[in-house]
Amino acid sequence: MKQVYLDYSATTPIKEEVLEAMLPVYKNGYGNPSSLYTLGLEAKALLDKAREKVASSIGASGKEIFFTGCGSEADNWALIGVANKLKNKGKHIITSKIEHHAILHTCEYLEKQGYEITYLDVTKDGFVKPETLKAAIRKDTILVSIMFINNEVGTIQPIKELAKIAKENGVLFHTDGVQALGSIPIDVKDLGIDMMSMSAHKIYGPKGVGALYIRKGLRIDNYLHGGAQEMGKRAGTENLPSIVGFGKAAELVQDGLEEHIKKLTKLRDYTIDEILKRIPKSYLNGSRKNRHPGNINITFEYIEGEAILLLLDNYGISVATGSACASKSLNPSHVLDAMGVPWEMIHGTVRITLGDMTTKEDIDYFIEHLAKTVEVLRKLSPVDEKKGWN
Amino acid sequence: MKQVYLDYSATTPIKEEVLEAMLPVYKNGYGNPSSLYTLGLEAKALLDKAREKVASSIGASGKEIFFTGCGSEADNWALIGVANKLKNKGKHIITSKIEHHAILHTCEYLEKQGYEITYLDVTKDGFVKPETLKAAIRKDTILVSIMFINNEVGTIQPIKELAKIAKENGVLFHTDGVQALGSIPIDVKDLGIDMMSMSAHKIYGPKGVGALYIRKGLRIDNYLHGGAQEMGKRAGTENLPSIVGFGKAAELVQDGLEEHIKKLTKLRDYTIDEILKRIPKSYLNGSRKNRHPGNINITFEYIEGEAILLLLDNYGISVATGSACASKSLNPSHVLDAMGVPWEMIHGTVRITLGDMTTKEDIDYFIEHLAKTVEVLRKLSPVDEKKGWN
Repeated sequence: MKQVYLDYSATTPIKEEVLEAMLPVYKNGYGNPSSLYTLGLEAKALLDKAREKVASSIGASGKEIFFTGCGSEADNWALIGVANKLKNKGKHIITSKIEHHAILHTCEYLEKQGYEITYLDVTKDGFVKPETLKAAIRKDTILVSIMFINNEVGTIQPIKELAKIAKENGVLFHTDGVQALGSIPIDVKDLGIDMMSMSAHKIYGPKGVGALYIRKGLRIDNYLHGGAQEMGKRAGTENLPSIVGFGKAAELVQDGLEEHIKKLTKLRDYTIDEILKRIPKSYLNGSRKNRHPGNINITFEYIEGEAILLLLDNYGISVATGSACASKSLNPSHVLDAMGVPWEMIHGTVRITLGDMTTKEDIDYFIEHLAKTVEVLRKLSPVDEKKGWN
Repeated sequence: MKQVYLDYSATTPIKEEVLEAMLPVYKNGYGNPSSLYTLGLEAKALLDKAREKVASSIGASGKEIFFTGCGSEADNWALIGVANKLKNKGKHIITSKIEHHAILHTCEYLEKQGYEITYLDVTKDGFVKPETLKAAIRKDTILVSIMFINNEVGTIQPIKELAKIAKENGVLFHTDGVQALGSIPIDVKDLGIDMMSMSAHKIYGPKGVGALYIRKGLRIDNYLHGGAQEMGKRAGTENLPSIVGFGKAAELVQDGLEEHIKKLTKLRDYTIDEILKRIPKSYLNGSRKNRHPGNINITFEYIEGEAILLLLDNYGISVATGSACASKSLNPSHVLDAMGVPWEMIHGTVRITLGDMTTKEDIDYFIEHLAKTVEVLRKLSPVDEKKGWN
């Protein structure tokens, strides 16, 4: 059966060049980069090279990149590290209602530790408005954390403006850049970002490795305590093969970004247009402007997104209802909820995310089966325009 | 040049069978195990299978194994998770002076958060005495964390007795089992362990994946906050290729453990005997009884361990001075210090750790060059028996 993977925001397949870069490290580069003998020094050199590549892809320097075990760890570190470091300065943190759970659940943890969190509202298009942030900043605010690109509806937040407001008020600015890296050009210096979380497996790199960019000169507390790895900031034996893979993936991203964005945007717009044209009562969530080049989030009225997902799976098509991380929870999307989408519409929502390997043929195959699937489900649905919801 | 790797306690080369098990997952198993479509479910099945294999290698059930990004993360989680969970019950934690930095530095972090830590003394042979633990337990003690096998001197702690004392006093018992897994038989149920940290790259598996065993029924707070992965206990997209590798490595360990121990012990004893016989003024640190089958830790009087390491490296031989995690720090070994070894002896210490790929030929090559190296360095040394230390 044809396989059409349309869930690139959940995770991406690893690129052949990336795996090829990793294999010799698995086979021969087993030295511990913290060891002092040749094998260790060789490992250390590979580590530094990968660090430079990741740094270069966001306009940072190598010394500002700290590898972690995943993007979520980078998020936990940024928030908890700043909270602990600055607790004597203040205990107020600002974030938004549409963050990834790695941010939201870390905020809940910090609330239990006595911190106060403000969760900013977003517009119905899915954006945090700079003036909303401005109004929320207090004297005891120590950190603003707003995600770069939303993982469900793909909205690209006005990071430069938000970071500027934080800076003007002497507040640190962190962004969860997991969905942004490799999808839009990023220059952390130009944007004024203090910290940014990243993940390799969202950019055709391996799972199990992420990174936190920490602006030079900024000191935050450690999160993972132990050995002196990562310049004494993050313990744990360096995951060298995956870090080398992350470096290669970042390099590929940087080299091909313009073309990647152009290709994806065209495919995305085609997909959105076709769906809205061919399938009645379908609505795009999130703005069409300032949107992740591969993100499509659509509500099909009167049916369940999960039913669509499962029927499409029969045709080898993989799409999502919300984020993968929340797929096993029964809570409807907190993102669509914050955007004011009514709960019955939230339940009828599907996230389709395109990537490097997606072709127009894939999309046509997908839309064909999507249209049929929606029709079938609507016939079975206990509700429709006439019956209404009860 | 001949390569003789004798630093298996720092990290082990990945086994061919392990990498072979991982490759198809890298290539085809890219589904996110938290996704609901077939690709996700297939990934989930691989995840569960690996979990069972790791569980089986320590006599646990799959539901008691939670994958992490490394052994250090498992240590951080156990300590911080219990501390947060039980803070209303008490704020006293007991550990030992010879723990890995992942434990010691986490304890320092907890001290800053208002917890009180007792660091138990050890005997000159490198053991925590059960009566020392018994005397340290207080009404407000919530956790005892004693490592299973010390990473520097290889002493196997009396875990069963220690865990029993904790249990009799209603206190939870955690052990850092990173050096123990794959080196001695472990049955967590028989030993009465509540939590145990593990790491794949110490058992010929990949770097970047560890696990925490949490006894069924025991609830501790989450450490890495975010998505609902790992039964809602540890966020972050599952590192499936590495987890599958960890499973394979654990399976291989379980199947070949008896033979592995027999082979290593023989080689270890041969190495110790030869060194002590051929090199004057050399002393074994740590007990010969109840010792890691591949661990050798020897002090060569009047010279520097680091100089030995660097000269041996010229012959393709990799040994360590202390643990890899602390190799870049100038502090002498806290383990030898706790055992009462004087500082000048600590500085003359080398750790040699053997593993699956070590042969008698390797050892003979090593001892040959070690003897020469020590002789050369002693000639250059500003101190000796007559001159003494100043």
